Amino acid sequence: MAYKALTVDTLPERLKGVAALAAQVGDDATAWQVQEVGDGNLNLVFIVTGPGGKAIVKQALPYVRLVGDSWPLPLYRAYFEYHALTRQAARDPGSVPSVYHFDEAQALIIMEFLAPHVILRRKLIAGERVAGLAEFLGRYCARTAFRGSELSMQRPDKKADVALFAGNVEIPAITEALVFTDPYFDAEMNSHTEGLEPVIARLRADVGLKVKVQQALQRFVSNTETMVHGDLHSGSIMSTDSDSRVIDPEFVQYGPMGFDIGMLCANFLMAYFSQPAHRGSDLAAYQAWILGVIADTCSIFETEFRHLWATERTGILFPASLFEDQDHDSSPACDAVSAGLWRDAWAVCGIEMHRRCLSLAHNADFEDIADASVRAPLEARNLLMGAELIHTADTLADAMAVCALARDYNGKDVL
Amino acid sequence: MAYKALTVDTLPERLKGVAALAAQVGDDATAWQVQEVGDGNLNLVFIVTGPGGKAIVKQALPYVRLVGDSWPLPLYRAYFEYHALTRQAARDPGSVPSVYHFDEAQALIIMEFLAPHVILRRKLIAGERVAGLAEFLGRYCARTAFRGSELSMQRPDKKADVALFAGNVEIPAITEALVFTDPYFDAEMNSHTEGLEPVIARLRADVGLKVKVQQALQRFVSNTETMVHGDLHSGSIMSTDSDSRVIDPEFVQYGPMGFDIGMLCANFLMAYFSQPAHRGSDLAAYQAWILGVIADTCSIFETEFRHLWATERTGILFPASLFEDQDHDSSPACDAVSAGLWRDAWAVCGIEMHRRCLSLAHNADFEDIADASVRAPLEARNLLMGAELIHTADTLADAMAVCALARDYNGKDVL
Repeated sequence: MAYKALTVDTLPERLKGVAALAAQVGDDATAWQVQEVGDGNLNLVFIVTGPGGKAIVKQALPYVRLVGDSWPLPLYRAYFEYHALTRQAARDPGSVPSVYHFDEAQALIIMEFLAPHVILRRKLIAGERVAGLAEFLGRYCARTAFRGSELSMQRPDKKADVALFAGNVEIPAITEALVFTDPYFDAEMNSHTEGLEPVIARLRADVGLKVKVQQALQRFVSNTETMVHGDLHSGSIMSTDSDSRVIDPEFVQYGPMGFDIGMLCANFLMAYFSQPAHRGSDLAAYQAWILGVIADTCSIFETEFRHLWATERTGILFPASLFEDQDHDSSPACDAVSAGLWRDAWAVCGIEMHRRCLSLAHNADFEDIADASVRAPLEARNLLMGAELIHTADTLADAMAVCALARDYNGKDVL
Repeated sequence: MAYKALTVDTLPERLKGVAALAAQVGDDATAWQVQEVGDGNLNLVFIVTGPGGKAIVKQALPYVRLVGDSWPLPLYRAYFEYHALTRQAARDPGSVPSVYHFDEAQALIIMEFLAPHVILRRKLIAGERVAGLAEFLGRYCARTAFRGSELSMQRPDKKADVALFAGNVEIPAITEALVFTDPYFDAEMNSHTEGLEPVIARLRADVGLKVKVQQALQRFVSNTETMVHGDLHSGSIMSTDSDSRVIDPEFVQYGPMGFDIGMLCANFLMAYFSQPAHRGSDLAAYQAWILGVIADTCSIFETEFRHLWATERTGILFPASLFEDQDHDSSPACDAVSAGLWRDAWAVCGIEMHRRCLSLAHNADFEDIADASVRAPLEARNLLMGAELIHTADTLADAMAVCALARDYNGKDVL
């Protein structure tokens, strides 16, 4: 049948014949309980509970939920999400929910129900810690970056994949506009907290900043180094107190190797800057934990990337024939690749910090702060640090330097 | 019918029904004269002469001519050549031969016969000047670079084109291996002039050089800034004494904006370094003319690129909304894009200078020098300047600085 959005009421009847779903939740569809829990912008998400267990049914909607049907979005993004999930599962086993079934016509993926996982952003706002978070995220980012690139993949496979994901047009176009361009002028869908005007004026008057941001956009649109998740913020990660998974890769594309980890660090930094409004006496300790997650994630990324460099360099780039086979240490080459990756990452990090306060689609870390007079100065610290990251991305030593910068801005009254 | 290579004898019978060919050369195929003139590595090239005029019939062969059928190559490259020619014609009208007919199954393109054009490399070896050469090449490179990028194209069109040309796998793979990797180790198909061993040892011992070359390869394989010709040397240009065209784009791919002009400059530099073996009393004047072509080509590229930046910036990159609409001069942005482009170009230039003396597929500029003891010291100058370009690509001021470097090396005994 043609695409039709599921509802809580129609789901059992429509999906009762899907063996992969019945295998998870039980054969008797009349016994299924269905709950719609989608809180994102783009999809319906149902939890189906039956005598045998639970499963997630995710179905794309033909428009942006936040905006309504005035902003149509192609259903084919479920196709790219499905292909992204299979590649992420292969490149970092266990990092993403298992996929049980994909129906292209219905733009529908049936996948593993994660429990008791919740969206990481909620935990960060609530001041909860997640054991092993940095290890998981550092490894995930390093493995997907390395194993989706010509450091690992064979050229024909990589080219075929680049061609496939080049079909994902409209969703990455949201990133191109909302992340890289809208924050830096008075775009129609922008919004910001009252009181930030002087800071915003300063950012938008900074021509050098805009040049660097647009250079990052140029790399985002015309650099196919690896398959990136494309939207790896704390709302795309689900965690328990000791287990995490990455979800929602519909923004997938081939892009710069530093993109995901840069966006990820930005979201931890925003969690960090928002904490004074969420915490009491545990503020300092929890902020220190967040910075520790950033530093450790980056350090584990680096360790894992170098491990893969040493053990899995099977692509055409930096071949052993030019290095190890000549008794030439290839670590200067790994240093150079890593340095370029972090340059991209810190620029993207700063840009993501901007767009979440200035463009459409703010994040709950700041939005949950009801009092604008409390929110504005915290967002201002975040915005100005973002600008410094963009300006200094080429020369930043490492994530420790970024954390030091965050501590500086956290103590500053910048409004 | 299935693919079958044409011969001088079978061509009239097989192509007599192609109206577009008959329109060029005349209806009576029995009156056609056919001559095979392919001197490249990959194709059959026929000149068909009839009462109405002449046309070129170019047909891909299923193997590398230079090596034989032990090196198979897909016939589909004619498909990419055809699509490249249509885009080049649209992006720089008049720069490439007109296409009359394309037959995908026969891997065959019927196109304009250029007369009295000859391969530019032959003219450079013969010491002949071509009026307007720098203007033509500078504009061609700038227009194809700019108009094939997101500075100009809309994202959906660009993504569709990137996906299409990602199908061109095996031909760009030749470049990946022969240009970027083989020169730097003892690869099977390599050859070099006797006497160069000390220079070659020096290059291959230079780990920093190999790192920079492989970083350039990383950009070549995972940077889709614009549609590049991919093989723009003086054998891919045909000229009279005042008119030039670009031919043979089967190495087409989306790649770095500086790739074509970098490879082009390398081929002029090799023409320059080879001249002492080809010229008499006109040596200094002709060498000066070649350097003038390099300097002028680059300067015209820059002027044309900036003109297009000011007048045709219709893509999503560096939009007017962030610059001109805010009364912010966008020239710092153009400076930054240009600087990045030339960094890529000079690295590619140095690499091309290496591969033409060390890998497979040397060029006639040097190969036509029969005496190895004359050839080796000239190639040595070329090789060492290539290394200096690769090392200093990030900091070179401009093409004038490159020409000054060439004059220095031209006066040095480096062997």
